[in-house]
Amino acid sequence: MSTKQDDELAQERLVELAAEFYDQFAAGEVPHMDIPTRTKSNIVFDEESKVWVYGDRTSTRSANSVRGARKLLKAAYAIEFLVNQLEESRSSTLRELYYLSESWDNEEAQFNSQDESNQLIEDLEIVSKVTREDFHMRPEESGATLMGPLELREQTRRGEREIHCQKDVGEGGYQIPNNPDTIDFLDHDIDFVLCVETGGMRDRLVENGFDEEYNCLVVHLKGQPARATRRITKRLHDELSLPVVVFTDGDPWSYRIYGSVAYGSIKSAHLSEYLATPEARFVGIQPEDIVEYDLPTDPLADSDVNALESELEDPRFQTDYWTEQIELQLDLEKKAEQQALASRGLDFVTDTYLPERLSTMGVL
Amino acid sequence: MSTKQDDELAQERLVELAAEFYDQFAAGEVPHMDIPTRTKSNIVFDEESKVWVYGDRTSTRSANSVRGARKLLKAAYAIEFLVNQLEESRSSTLRELYYLSESWDNEEAQFNSQDESNQLIEDLEIVSKVTREDFHMRPEESGATLMGPLELREQTRRGEREIHCQKDVGEGGYQIPNNPDTIDFLDHDIDFVLCVETGGMRDRLVENGFDEEYNCLVVHLKGQPARATRRITKRLHDELSLPVVVFTDGDPWSYRIYGSVAYGSIKSAHLSEYLATPEARFVGIQPEDIVEYDLPTDPLADSDVNALESELEDPRFQTDYWTEQIELQLDLEKKAEQQALASRGLDFVTDTYLPERLSTMGVL
Repeated sequence: MSTKQDDELAQERLVELAAEFYDQFAAGEVPHMDIPTRTKSNIVFDEESKVWVYGDRTSTRSANSVRGARKLLKAAYAIEFLVNQLEESRSSTLRELYYLSESWDNEEAQFNSQDESNQLIEDLEIVSKVTREDFHMRPEESGATLMGPLELREQTRRGEREIHCQKDVGEGGYQIPNNPDTIDFLDHDIDFVLCVETGGMRDRLVENGFDEEYNCLVVHLKGQPARATRRITKRLHDELSLPVVVFTDGDPWSYRIYGSVAYGSIKSAHLSEYLATPEARFVGIQPEDIVEYDLPTDPLADSDVNALESELEDPRFQTDYWTEQIELQLDLEKKAEQQALASRGLDFVTDTYLPERLSTMGVL
Repeated sequence: MSTKQDDELAQERLVELAAEFYDQFAAGEVPHMDIPTRTKSNIVFDEESKVWVYGDRTSTRSANSVRGARKLLKAAYAIEFLVNQLEESRSSTLRELYYLSESWDNEEAQFNSQDESNQLIEDLEIVSKVTREDFHMRPEESGATLMGPLELREQTRRGEREIHCQKDVGEGGYQIPNNPDTIDFLDHDIDFVLCVETGGMRDRLVENGFDEEYNCLVVHLKGQPARATRRITKRLHDELSLPVVVFTDGDPWSYRIYGSVAYGSIKSAHLSEYLATPEARFVGIQPEDIVEYDLPTDPLADSDVNALESELEDPRFQTDYWTEQIELQLDLEKKAEQQALASRGLDFVTDTYLPERLSTMGVL
């Protein structure tokens, strides 16, 4: 969890960055900062760790141009802000940082757009090897929830809260905080973690008591999952040695949701180690389920076909399993939603579909 | 809260609808159903109750055409499904109902699109005067949260849960269930209810302890609020006699968010009594705040200007206050976000802006 040590480490790393500028000035060098090049060509899928990582190429931000000097000035101001924020045990959102820069005394240091401040925070994450969460920068929304036999302790700024994610919460479940590293896992009876794309399906599983019957922790992904949701999923896997399975709609956009849980994204390759769970497995809806369970479908749109074809090229989906499923879907020309299982009755998903699929996968 | 009596009442009303068809058949009449006409011309803003209501015009759905007969057949099947669902204390989503119809024995009764099933449920709400929630139809998402000095009891299908919305929850707060009528308010120290549009601002208020310092209950609206969020806001106002204030961005879309909390929407005029809180008041960001607090702004887009102009015609905004503010904004040609207050420092909103505004309004 996020401790005083983490805060101090984050401060230290940030101050080191500023100290480098100082040393460069002192040595008569033009100040500069090296960061990994963040273009697609410098991001590779590491076959061993099964996540995206940066290659060896770096770019240099140097004060040898006005534009470059301004970037380093902004970095220095942002570092000062973050160090103060950590010292005061405060936090802020990315958007607040953007607006806050208007209060800085040097107008040249102020951000012109939120893209610029967001980008700078990502650069600082990469160079300092400290995550945004450990800078105490919050996203605008976290939003996802947990329901299942897990007892945890959350360190809030109002003291510790011990919460059982079935017994101490309403039907809405336990709301994951922005920084899930404030959570300690105390005790659990979880056999596996089930990440679910849609709210409708999450509610179905909870109403049918699937979490109780199968000792599973239901993690609501809410579409493309927030960093907090991916982080806690990874921690559940790593720290509690729990299998993680992902249950989404049966279309290419949902396979990408699975991909971001399992392998991370190109955009945040520097965070793969922190967020990705390469051992996470896909339950469905599989294209073959459309046939096997005779599900109601919609035809593939052109954009679906394009997305499927680009997944065939995506290193994350270079397995026999995915090639077969995606090619089958291109043949079928159909897609199906999770909730299409309701065409076989409201209990079909919990009485038949998931038990069958999870047994086949060896999870049950 | 939703009790066995509510369930029985809902069943009774639904069965009465079906019984009407039966009586019509028995009397040799062509079966039919009268519902208020749901066009804009038949929806009026009731000046006295300050909410949208239907006018006197009704439309008749009659089995005197194949199309009309099919509609009534679908209604009959849906009624049977809902009555069974209530008998079994189950619930389902609108999307599940759409898919579930594929399992019905009569193909003519199956829905062709989710629009069709959604529309039917709205018709049944209007005719039976029972809300969708009391049919146990869930939305896809509820999502909003509460944080503040409120102790409540939620009736879940796993038993009762007593939860204090500060002491028993993490920083994420208490997740409002899909049907907030399963909640009883037990005890509270709330002086006023503060509904907040964005997650970033909600987190700022909680981090700064605004709910503790001012005894306020922070309700996160998450943009355009879900029915569950509007319902619980209304109940807090009506049952606990609490003032409700709404805090949003300073643009026409956000004034609509305020409008939907306070006055309801044209689309759901039949629900105004259940969802709208006409006494809710607007804190800001007011156009005049942009000037007074010298906030960072964005220029109005054409779509913003059009939306402001249409609000000048909207009966919900026909007050001196709103006319003045909207005309001021059209003059300024600017809009500002809640989080723009951070340009004055992270504590400005809780130390200065909200205390000043709430004092002016007489809430503090």
